[in-house]
Amino acid sequence: MKARITVTLKNGVLDPQGKAIEGALGALGFDGVDSVRQGKVIDIALADTDKDTAQTRLSDMCEKLLANTVIENYQIEIL
Amino acid sequence: MKARITVTLKNGVLDPQGKAIEGALGALGFDGVDSVRQGKVIDIALADTDKDTAQTRLSDMCEKLLANTVIENYQIEIL
Repeated sequence: MKARITVTLKNGVLDPQGKAIEGALGALGFDGVDSVRQGKVIDIALADTDKDTAQTRLSDMCEKLLANTVIENYQIEIL
Repeated sequence: MKARITVTLKNGVLDPQGKAIEGALGALGFDGVDSVRQGKVIDIALADTDKDTAQTRLSDMCEKLLANTVIENYQIEIL
């Protein structure tokens, strides 16, 4: 079973990487870019065949390793 | 207009970061993890109001800055 986990910074958390991209886009002549935020995406292939078990295990992985829940949100999508 | 760009490594491109996550999950006791690949996600807020223009501009941004098309694929999603 394949899943995609998207980890994004919570609102209000500073995102210097996003700001750098915003600046670079401006320097390349792309105007009208109001904001840029960068996050990460993690594609996992699991041996589980049951959707619910997979979902629970993935939440667990996010809480324990993949996301820093103090400053990041995560979203799990079973593909 | 908001858009989400997902940049992932092409198949066959080595992903040490993904391998590290895979190893760490194993060390934490999560078994049955067959593979992990890490990519990035970029959330952009654009001033454009026209969907087609936005799509074209976003592709352009990906080609020029956001993705290294030699080793990465990108996917644009207008939200």
